[in-house]
Amino acid sequence: MFYHIVIIGGGPAGIITALTAKSVYPDKSVCVIKQIGDGVIPCAIPYMMYTLSDPAQNAMGNMPLQNAGVEVLVDTALSLDLENHTVELKERGDVSFERLVLATGLCPGIPPIPGRDKKGVFAIEKSMSYMTALRGEAHKATNVVIIGGGFIGAEFADELSRSSRANVHVAEIMPKIMYTAFDDEFCDEAAKELTTAGVQLHLGKTVQSINGNTQVESVSLDNGENIPADMVLVGIGGKPDTSLAEKAGLKLIEGGAIWVDDYMRTSAEGVFAVGDCALKRDFFTRKAVPVWLASTATAEARIAGINIYGIRVIRQIQGTIAAFSTKIGNRAFASAGMTTRACEREGFRYLAATSTAPDRHPGTLPGVSLLKLKLVFSDRSGILLGGQISGGASVGELINLIALAIQKKVTVREIEMMQLATHPLLTSAPTVHPLIDASNQVLNALRAAVH
Amino acid sequence: MFYHIVIIGGGPAGIITALTAKSVYPDKSVCVIKQIGDGVIPCAIPYMMYTLSDPAQNAMGNMPLQNAGVEVLVDTALSLDLENHTVELKERGDVSFERLVLATGLCPGIPPIPGRDKKGVFAIEKSMSYMTALRGEAHKATNVVIIGGGFIGAEFADELSRSSRANVHVAEIMPKIMYTAFDDEFCDEAAKELTTAGVQLHLGKTVQSINGNTQVESVSLDNGENIPADMVLVGIGGKPDTSLAEKAGLKLIEGGAIWVDDYMRTSAEGVFAVGDCALKRDFFTRKAVPVWLASTATAEARIAGINIYGIRVIRQIQGTIAAFSTKIGNRAFASAGMTTRACEREGFRYLAATSTAPDRHPGTLPGVSLLKLKLVFSDRSGILLGGQISGGASVGELINLIALAIQKKVTVREIEMMQLATHPLLTSAPTVHPLIDASNQVLNALRAAVH
Repeated sequence: MFYHIVIIGGGPAGIITALTAKSVYPDKSVCVIKQIGDGVIPCAIPYMMYTLSDPAQNAMGNMPLQNAGVEVLVDTALSLDLENHTVELKERGDVSFERLVLATGLCPGIPPIPGRDKKGVFAIEKSMSYMTALRGEAHKATNVVIIGGGFIGAEFADELSRSSRANVHVAEIMPKIMYTAFDDEFCDEAAKELTTAGVQLHLGKTVQSINGNTQVESVSLDNGENIPADMVLVGIGGKPDTSLAEKAGLKLIEGGAIWVDDYMRTSAEGVFAVGDCALKRDFFTRKAVPVWLASTATAEARIAGINIYGIRVIRQIQGTIAAFSTKIGNRAFASAGMTTRACEREGFRYLAATSTAPDRHPGTLPGVSLLKLKLVFSDRSGILLGGQISGGASVGELINLIALAIQKKVTVREIEMMQLATHPLLTSAPTVHPLIDASNQVLNALRAAVH
Repeated sequence: MFYHIVIIGGGPAGIITALTAKSVYPDKSVCVIKQIGDGVIPCAIPYMMYTLSDPAQNAMGNMPLQNAGVEVLVDTALSLDLENHTVELKERGDVSFERLVLATGLCPGIPPIPGRDKKGVFAIEKSMSYMTALRGEAHKATNVVIIGGGFIGAEFADELSRSSRANVHVAEIMPKIMYTAFDDEFCDEAAKELTTAGVQLHLGKTVQSINGNTQVESVSLDNGENIPADMVLVGIGGKPDTSLAEKAGLKLIEGGAIWVDDYMRTSAEGVFAVGDCALKRDFFTRKAVPVWLASTATAEARIAGINIYGIRVIRQIQGTIAAFSTKIGNRAFASAGMTTRACEREGFRYLAATSTAPDRHPGTLPGVSLLKLKLVFSDRSGILLGGQISGGASVGELINLIALAIQKKVTVREIEMMQLATHPLLTSAPTVHPLIDASNQVLNALRAAVH
């Protein structure tokens, strides 16, 4: 078998690389090798618990790939022979390629907590059969412990608190939930949504062991607390799956992602890596960071797909800004760029301001939510470093405005001077829109500092 | 009476100028002179018909101004004496100033259609008592004719089709409703929302006369059609209110707005004009354009407020991009920058693409709407010229992303490489987001053109 372009991995990064490459190089044959036949849309996995009435609604079909003329093989890549440009597949033997893209994602599975192999302990896997079984168990459970209070753990806690009669617990090692993406006040707001729904949070706690005979019966925390549990869900992010890359001798970074340059090229000629398995650099610090988000993965995939036979498009936007949104309880939350906590850790001087306003005007209109926006600017240059938002349905695209502003190095003065479309039924009032108001607060602080 | 800064007009432009000036120059006394005591929030006037259960919910209070230390006078300015720096007020006599800002908006009233003074003919005025009376009449009416199918007419038609048992007609001189802001397909989509709700559209028709004895009985169109009417609502945009400026000898432009430079300074030293009464220049053509939108007016107000005692902030964003959003029926509509129709009229070469996707992923999630996005790019430089959107609640902030991209002269390659946050419950999937997909279509067309 031969394909010009072979992509290992059928997640968003693999799919977008395939579609982009096929559209830029229509004469090249493109093949995606995916391990899971009954794949699911990854970001929507939590919503298979409750919000989607039937988990089958979250099936990830191959039609978009096949319609574009991309071959899809359900198979497992066992090894790479980079000298001879071949991939060894478990079922089909060798496939040769001109260009290879590794989009192998994160290692599935559960971190080495004692008792992790007991019945009732589940990872979050990207297979329909596994997740459908998990949903069935969750609906029967009495006490569920979710390990990890990042956004995945928080989303599962939210869904299970709606769908199941179980007591839902979240154990998180950091002092707050969703601690990486948000400053304290947003973490606290999300936590309140969960606790209001009856979820019990165990913050700043490490899970010591999962206890029971064959079936899980409880989870022990490092403070001695013992939480009864007939089901445990492990929602801790894994680590980049670099097994194929490592065996083939590709350069890895410390901590274990595949090293890539700004065009997603690995250390081997003609071999690319994209998505969660590939090195991510922070947009501002250029440090390697463990950011595993579709926003970054799909941008990387488009860069690799376009440039796979020579650099055609100079990469203008470099490094991840960790643009991200979620919904917990009745509130949407979103973040992009640096939090003030990250600024302090990395030594960035900053000015930040928070503004809140109803997301309709007047605020008496039906369907109104309070929109809360925090902007973080570099204190002399006024360049936007980051933004965090909570509110209603508009949050999902408002964070993308922030994301674009960060990527274009927009300053506080430019935001304050923006022409912003507003409408009573769709946005905050033009006189109080938090984007303008937060910028205005920072400008006032800058002016006060000058005098 | 003396105030350092006197602002004539209490609409969004006047309010924002006052608040900005007061925050930048806290030692200066600032006064807003407004004609209407019982003002309403202008953009939400249509929603006083039905969506707001009580019209009083749309009251525009003076608290934000008063809390900021701005004086509010309900009075009418009769004339300006620019030599002596005074404004003559109807009730209070002369007020002196160091700086004067004209934010006089549009002329109220009804264009000179024969029969316009009959009972049952209403303009859209910014006063609580007037609009509350209008609501009462609308709820009793049997046949309502709305003159003008711009967004105000369309919003009123939408509201009245929900609230009243009346037959609702819209007479529009252009071939489509909302013709200035949108290309045909979006106009047609909005029209379909209205006709589905029972509104009868009379497109490409001029109103010849309003008929009846003292009370309106019918409206005659230029094709001879006669529409029965016991109520007529005139929703045609007026013209800039330049009466004070003209009498004081300020330079006006042809067609009648107050001439201003890029910092909103009029032809007289120390006198500024902002909002609908002031000259608007198009962002791309620099031509004078009749764009009367809060997005432009409030940006101008911030520029005037900051720079009122000397230019402190160089204006980086020049000219109006007419950023705008509305909701008609069950769909939100938004536009910014140039339509393809405007490109053709103005001689701009362009490449445009439209992409649609569910605004949730999977599209089986509850609350999903189809998001439709059209992007218009300059055909060689790839610079974004404009965008139009229809869809659900996310449209209101997504258009602001487009607005920022236009103002920052972002190119199609930069949009295609954006890191875009996505979430199942809040946005389209990262693999099909219309912003990326439309850009990608244009890039493919550009590549095809190069070969």
